[in-house]
Formats: sequence, C-alpha cells, structure tokens
Amino acid sequence: MSEQVEMIPGNSLITKTPEEGRQLAVKMARLVIKATQPDAAVREKLRPIYAEDAAMLIAIGQVVASEFATIAAANNYWK
Amino acid sequence: MSEQVEMIPGNSLITKTPEEGRQLAVKMARLVIKATQPDAAVREKLRPIYAEDAAMLIAIGQVVASEFATIAAANNYWK
Amino acid sequence: MSEQVEMIPGNSLITKTPEEGRQLAVKMARLVIKATQPDAAVREKLRPIYAEDAAMLIAIGQVVASEFATIAAANNYWK
Amino acid sequence: MSEQVEMIPGNSLITKTPEEGRQLAVKMARLVIKATQPDAAVREKLRPIYAEDAAMLIAIGQVVASEFATIAAANNYWK
Amino acid sequence: MSEQVEMIPGNSLITKTPEEGRQLAVKMARLVIKATQPDAAVREKLRPIYAEDAAMLIAIGQVVASEFATIAAANNYWK
Amino acid sequence: MSEQVEMIPGNSLITKTPEEGRQLAVKMARLVIKATQPDAAVREKLRPIYAEDAAMLIAIGQVVASEFATIAAANNYWK
Repeated sequence: MSEQVEMIPGNSLITKTPEEGRQLAVKMARLVIKATQPDAAVREKLRPIYAEDAAMLIAIGQVVASEFATIAAANNYWK
Repeated sequence: MSEQVEMIPGNSLITKTPEEGRQLAVKMARLVIKATQPDAAVREKLRPIYAEDAAMLIAIGQVVASEFATIAAANNYWK
Repeated sequence: MSEQVEMIPGNSLITKTPEEGRQLAVKMARLVIKATQPDAAVREKLRPIYAEDAAMLIAIGQVVASEFATIAAANNYWK
Repeated sequence: MSEQVEMIPGNSLITKTPEEGRQLAVKMARLVIKATQPDAAVREKLRPIYAEDAAMLIAIGQVVASEFATIAAANNYWK
Repeated sequence: MSEQVEMIPGNSLITKTPEEGRQLAVKMARLVIKATQPDAAVREKLRPIYAEDAAMLIAIGQVVASEFATIAAANNYWK
Repeated sequence: MSEQVEMIPGNSLITKTPEEGRQLAVKMARLVIKATQPDAAVREKLRPIYAEDAAMLIAIGQVVASEFATIAAANNYWK
C-alpha cells in the first residue's frame, strides 16, 4: 500500500486558507479508504450506498472533522 | 467537489462569539454532507430519517462537538 | 435554525466550577438535537427510546465528554 | 436534572494520582447516564445488557478514554 | 469497583518508550472492560465474539488510539 | 501479547514527512488489530468483509485520523 497510494496530497498539512484545509481533510479521509480498498470498481459500487445513507453521511462528517482538527492545528488556525 | 461546494462559510474559523462559533460548527458539519451528497433532493429525503432517529441525532451531536472543539480553539475560547 | 434556537446558554464557555461546566456540556449537547429536530413533540417521543437503550445512553456519554473537553480547556480546567 | 444529580464528584478535576483520575473518569461517565436516565430500576435493568455485550463494553471504553483525556490534561499528566 | 480493579498499571502514564506507551494504552483499555464486567468467565466468552468481528476490532482500535493520545502527550511524545 | 507483536514500527512517532507519518498511522492502527486477533488466517478472512463495507471503511478512516493526530502533534506538524 505504502508505495501505490499517496496519502497526503502535496505531502504537507499547510494550506493557504481554512477552505483549502477543509478540502485537504476531505481528500485525506478519502485516501485512507482508497488505500484500504484499492479496487476502484468496488469503491464506485460503495459510493451510492454511503451517499444515500444518513448514518454513514454523518459518520463521514465525523472523520472529516477529525482530520480537519489536525490540519487546523498545523496551520495555527490560519490566524 | 472542491469548486462547487463552499465548505467553510466566510473562509475563516474566527467568530465574534461562542454562539456564532457554534452556528459555524453546525454549518461546517452540514457542508461535508452536502459535498458528499450534492443532490438536494436526496438530502431532503434523508432529513426526516435522521431527524426522527434518536441514534442519528446523537451522532450529529458528536460531529458538531468535534467541529466546535476546533473552532473554539481557533478563537482561544473567546477569552 | 440560527435565529430560533440559542445554542450556547449565556453565549459563553466560562463557568464558575467544573460542575457548572458539566451542566453546560449537557445543555450544549441537547441544544444541537433541538436545533436539528425543532419539533418538541418528536423529541418527547424519542426520549424514552434513548433513555432505555444502553447503547444510546453510552453514545450520549460520548457527546457530553467531547463538549466537556472543550469547556474544560476554555476554563483552563478551573485551576 | 441540574439539581438532583451531581455530575462531578468533589466538583474538581484534580486528583492525587493517575489511578484516582481514572476512577473519576469512570464516575463522570456514569453520572451522565444517571442524569439522562434517573430511574435506578431502569439503569439496573440495562446493566446486564451492556455488561455482556462486547460492542457496548468497547463503547464504554471509548467514553472513559475521552473523559480521562480531559482529566489527565487538567492534572498536567501528574508530572 | 474502585478497590477491586487497578485501572492504570504502575499508577503512572510515563513510559520509557512509545512501544511501552502503546502497551499501556492497550492495558488501560482492557482494564475499563474488566471493571465494567468483572466476571472473567463472561469476558472469556466475549473474546471470540469481538476478535472475529471486523467492526469490533476497528472499534477497539479507536479506543486504543484515544488512550494512546493521552499517554503520548503525557510523555511529550518521547522527544 | 506484549512480546509477540511490535505495536509501533521503529519504536518512534517521529517521521521525516507527513506522508510517512500517515503511513505510520495506518500501520499502528493495523497492529492493534493484529495484537487483538493474532491469527493471520482469521484476519485474512475479515479483510474482504471490512474492505467491501462502506460503514467499516469509514470507521477505519476514523481510527487512522485519530492515530495521525497524535503523530502529527509529535512531529510538531512537520513545520
């Protein structure tokens, strides 16, 4: 896994803005799933399952919140 | 996704008051769901499902708590 | 939602004591649910469901712990 | 609720040792459940349900870990 | 409970190495379960249930991650 | 368990880059599962279960996010 899938785009947690930090959080969350399930066809099959399931959408929100907490701290909250 | 959906209103974590910070936490949590499920009709269909499900309401509370923790730290707890 | 429901009583995270901070954590957790499900009748219907369900009671404990972590940090742990 | 149930024994997060801090974390987690379900008979009925359910025992572990993180920080990790 | 079960081996969060800190995280997570379910026979019965259930193994990973975060901070990340 | 399974490769949280830190987070998460379920055959049987289940993939993302938060703090966010 470690060689095929890049897990942090740009290899940095530093972003110019909170918005970009949030985008990075979403990408990092997705790349863990990609690393765990490298088969794109399976991931595509799963997409409508979680995208139409309220509980899973909430759970995705939780993961993004956690990734974003780290990114926000890394950027000293863009202050 | 990155271009269609704004993920942090105002592109800042800084708010005047804790109350506004809490509102931002709720909005940020919702925007992740919007980015993951861009179809407004599907989101509307899901709303009564989670709004009448105790476990999902609690899970939403967890996400908002996590987002708020980051926003509160960014604002040095409005001290 | 943002205008109807107050999300942080007193609009402050600062409390005199840990006990009051804990009470605030509980209230903040409840107000997210109130904002998400504004219909008091529905919330009343859900109360016995979560209050008699061990897994949901534990999940509520998790949310309160998370809110309290933020409040405790805001108060420098009342030291 | 705020008057009937004490939520933090001793109204302090400060403890002499990590072990006492851990005990406090367990108590604080339990007191949230007590506040949410004040009926002792119901709580007694729920006890064997969660105590014999692996998933719920793990979830309790998560709550205690979260409460303890706050207590440990409050005590500067007893260093 | 508070007298029968020791919850933090050695009554300290300080360890010589990250590896030992990780071992402590696992032990602390287990001791919460032991305190909640003191009957060793029941715990033994539950072991194959969670050890062969992917979702529960992931949930255990979450608890250990949380305990370890506290221990790592206590040790200033062994720097 | 403590002697058979190494839980932190290299016995250090320090990495050269965020990408390596992320890889370490994934490995640490996996090693908890390995320690809890030491039978490789069982783990192999579980792999397709979680890798094709959207909810479990999201839960894995949550664990990795938590481990990474600790690693990122240990490395002062590679700043």
